[in-house]
Parts: sequence; structure tokens; C-alpha cells
Amino acid sequence: MYEAKVKIGLKKGVSDPEGANTLKALHLLGFNTVKEAKTNRTVDLLIDGKNKNEVKKKVEEMCQRLLTNPVIHTYEIKIIRK
Amino acid sequence: MYEAKVKIGLKKGVSDPEGANTLKALHLLGFNTVKEAKTNRTVDLLIDGKNKNEVKKKVEEMCQRLLTNPVIHTYEIKIIRK
Repeated sequence: MYEAKVKIGLKKGVSDPEGANTLKALHLLGFNTVKEAKTNRTVDLLIDGKNKNEVKKKVEEMCQRLLTNPVIHTYEIKIIRK
Repeated sequence: MYEAKVKIGLKKGVSDPEGANTLKALHLLGFNTVKEAKTNRTVDLLIDGKNKNEVKKKVEEMCQRLLTNPVIHTYEIKIIRK
């Protein structure tokens, strides 16, 4: 069994309104030392598979077909043996 | 300058409809080896501060006041010197 951690972020130049609003709200609450805020999504999957490489390929395919929008998202995949 | 990575997840027993739907969709696409899918949110902050401990305390306060809902969320904070 493998655990796959997929971190999904936004490509450079794509606006991140959630991050911008978080930053604004933190400033309103008085946290003025915060200079930047970015939000990401992660998806943690539990997958059956023969080996790390095979699992990574599958997850790569899932990212392209469902988990991310390749026009605006970047993603990082980490596979951990369980 | 410090980078704070806050990973926000759901407490045990709190339902994760986004994860459940992701799992269902992956199965519909034929990825039957996936046994579990969980979604999390991360917030990456860039913060000015004197030392790691001070920054961590600030981020802890931000989590409690804005970033998370302590009734349903768990969070992990990682501080990295930049």
C-alpha cells in the first residue's frame, strides 16, 4: 500500500483571490508582519500498487485527468510506502 | 524573513465530502486501486520576525483567529528560515 500526497498550487501569474483575501484579513486583525499569503490544496490518496514508480505514474495520470486543471495548476507528487 | 506552511485538515469523524467525491470520480475513471482520498488546504505565509519561536506563536494565533475553525479542523505548522 502506498500513500500519495499531491500538492496542487497555482501557476505563476494566475491570481489567487483566496490568498489575497487571507492576507487582507490578517492585516485587518493586526498581523502586519505577514508579507504574503498563498493557498494550496492537497489531496492525500491511499493506493494499492506493485512499486513506487507504477504508483507515481498512476497518480500523474489522475492529476492530468481529474485532480488538477493543467491550464492554471502546478502539482507535486510525493509517494510514501506504507 | 520566515516561511510558514500551515496544513489544515479535518478532525477525525468530520465528514470530507470533497474527498469522498474525488474517490468516487477516480473509481468512475477506472482508478480502482485507490482506496482512500482526503483533501486538505494549506496556507503558505511569508512573515517578518525576530526568531522561529516568535513567528510560530504568531502563526498559532492566526490559525485560531482566522485560518482554521477549531471545531472541525486540525492544523500543522512548519516554520522555515528564508
